[in-house]
Amino acid sequence: MSHFFKVKTLDEVLALRQQFLPTDFETVDISASFSRILAKDLTAPRDLPGFRRATMDGFAVNAAATFGASESTPAWLEIQGSISMGRVPDFELAPGRAARIATGGMLPRGADAVVMVEHTQTIDDTSVEIYKSVAPLQHVIDADEDFRSGDVVLPAGTFIRPQEAGLAAGMGFSTLSVHRVPTVGIISTGDEIIPIDQEPSPGRIRDINSYTLSGFVHEAHATAVRYGITKDDPDRLRAVCEKALARTDMVLISGGSSVGTRDFTVEVLSALPDTRILVHGMSVSPGKPTILAKSGSTPVWGLPGQVVSAMVVMKMVVMPFLNRIQGYGAPRPLVRVPAKLTRNVASAQGRRDFIRVTLTDGPDGLAAKPVLGKSGLIRTMVHADGLLDIKENLEGLEKNTWTRVILL
Amino acid sequence: MSHFFKVKTLDEVLALRQQFLPTDFETVDISASFSRILAKDLTAPRDLPGFRRATMDGFAVNAAATFGASESTPAWLEIQGSISMGRVPDFELAPGRAARIATGGMLPRGADAVVMVEHTQTIDDTSVEIYKSVAPLQHVIDADEDFRSGDVVLPAGTFIRPQEAGLAAGMGFSTLSVHRVPTVGIISTGDEIIPIDQEPSPGRIRDINSYTLSGFVHEAHATAVRYGITKDDPDRLRAVCEKALARTDMVLISGGSSVGTRDFTVEVLSALPDTRILVHGMSVSPGKPTILAKSGSTPVWGLPGQVVSAMVVMKMVVMPFLNRIQGYGAPRPLVRVPAKLTRNVASAQGRRDFIRVTLTDGPDGLAAKPVLGKSGLIRTMVHADGLLDIKENLEGLEKNTWTRVILL
Repeated sequence: MSHFFKVKTLDEVLALRQQFLPTDFETVDISASFSRILAKDLTAPRDLPGFRRATMDGFAVNAAATFGASESTPAWLEIQGSISMGRVPDFELAPGRAARIATGGMLPRGADAVVMVEHTQTIDDTSVEIYKSVAPLQHVIDADEDFRSGDVVLPAGTFIRPQEAGLAAGMGFSTLSVHRVPTVGIISTGDEIIPIDQEPSPGRIRDINSYTLSGFVHEAHATAVRYGITKDDPDRLRAVCEKALARTDMVLISGGSSVGTRDFTVEVLSALPDTRILVHGMSVSPGKPTILAKSGSTPVWGLPGQVVSAMVVMKMVVMPFLNRIQGYGAPRPLVRVPAKLTRNVASAQGRRDFIRVTLTDGPDGLAAKPVLGKSGLIRTMVHADGLLDIKENLEGLEKNTWTRVILL
Repeated sequence: MSHFFKVKTLDEVLALRQQFLPTDFETVDISASFSRILAKDLTAPRDLPGFRRATMDGFAVNAAATFGASESTPAWLEIQGSISMGRVPDFELAPGRAARIATGGMLPRGADAVVMVEHTQTIDDTSVEIYKSVAPLQHVIDADEDFRSGDVVLPAGTFIRPQEAGLAAGMGFSTLSVHRVPTVGIISTGDEIIPIDQEPSPGRIRDINSYTLSGFVHEAHATAVRYGITKDDPDRLRAVCEKALARTDMVLISGGSSVGTRDFTVEVLSALPDTRILVHGMSVSPGKPTILAKSGSTPVWGLPGQVVSAMVVMKMVVMPFLNRIQGYGAPRPLVRVPAKLTRNVASAQGRRDFIRVTLTDGPDGLAAKPVLGKSGLIRTMVHADGLLDIKENLEGLEKNTWTRVILL
């Protein structure tokens, strides 16, 4: 590499997301829309629920007829009839009358509230005493109270949780326009890496990164495609890179944590057609040797080979880019929980540090305890519950500091 | 129903999980094991990484040869050779010598530590000065430091995250024994409920619950099977219940939030062969009319028909049972974040209340603001970020109280 690259901060790297575009969209059945990203604004085609609806079992009334009613001075109302579920009442409620109604039933015209059955006493088949007054629209959902025709109920870029699918179902959308699920190509490099079904001779280790990285892609509801292991050979790496670029929306190359191999990945990427190196080193630990290139419109990452570093960079740096490509309006927020540090943790000023911690219940909340063990050990990620986030302007965090831990 | 049922607390209901058993197990490829539950303990077949490995680029040394080295009094070592990645070194390091090594390389016999390249200066091809002493095993992962042969590395009941799959890959497991993914049958009942692709006449509403409940099943990585909408007719409900029971691991019946329909669901369930009602009413709001039956070995739930109530009961009550059937060692913990209440919230003593709130960044942390709008409104769940949890012994929570909000 002849170019000079300044090491970038995490925020500088994350700002490069804007250089990449979301996938195109497709139409899916609503029952297949969970965890997808809405590609177009969803607009209410009409009012929801569309009619005035009881939210309690009791009596539909005109609220005014109950004003002043109490235990000692009940209001006496004549029962005009019963309302069947799922039917339009075949009568209009006359002033001073009441109609039996169940939760979900449609109020008859003339009624604007429901008295809970607990606050009534039927005297006989034709009359009821009311022991508590109700306000207009009390225990009622009005016709346009959930949504009004023409409202944007879900903007493009929304992640579809159960409630968003339910809302769309309630509006009558049986299909939704969502972004295509991106595919992520995963390549492992390194002369010392062997497939997991082989017995490693001393000096070799199995390909762990292809699986951990696939796992994060799966967690993000995207599709991982593994392109196997490539030896430290520029021609082979170039060939597999081109293959992955032709078929996927993002490429991850893991390995090359040593200086020589790292340069070699940058060299291969630089030589690809229509490709620019955007990041060559970050002031993030672990994760310093991370590389990001833009090849055509596709992001290509060079991730550290160490298993823990690769996972931390994947979670903290690559995921927001994947979210961007998935079509999220904003990256999925990280879940952070406050916890109290059990010991001093050192850091370097100017470097963003992510430290693995366990979280345990303590007397005054969660206690965050740094996980002992070196960063090449996958065990430390299995034991970790979260990541301590130490910003660039700090030289560390002191024991008993309250801090917000990112959940893993 | 002739039996008398005492309304149960949430904890009493959750304790009934023990009456149900996890699904059987199957073997899957490790790349298909994400978000599955391990069915058998995973034991290390040998030490990991299996050899002494460098975690930094630099020089492999015998630590003792560096003792006392500093900037002003460097140690001088003869370079014995270079170590190739993925190869067993073909020499033993002689005392007082050093060998070039890259991260991930195997240390030669005779070496027990690595000096970082930053703390060295090569004098010529055959000698190097060391400016910082290292301790034995510094910048090295020892042969059995990740796992020792015979260790239980992952116990049965573990949810497989990226790091657990990576760990298993590192051990050479290309398949894993996991619990079968449970299927959950979903039935909507109610004369007023219509399929989502129909235009509701006044008094009718679309079947939202089938979709929200499917969404939660999807979130739990289980499989939802929708059995459509059944009218309030005992024979039909019984028939569809029996069909679902024959094919799924758990059945959810939503609807019947009015007193009459609720009794009718209990009646149908009680009349099924080999079926016992375990819960008929909970001191939980929303969710009071919840029913749980055990039919053969299968849990059958009667959930409230109101969309919000059905979702809250699904999240807070049904999910731990689903986790049990999935084979989790313990239910997936709920994610709770501390937040400060923006206003007083009333509750009733003896009742567990779950109140929808939005979470926004405030000056001293998150602010939890109760979502206005009635509990029949799906919109309120779309806007909500979490649930306020008000325990049975409280009559409410005061404005400015710090509380732990359950994320939705």
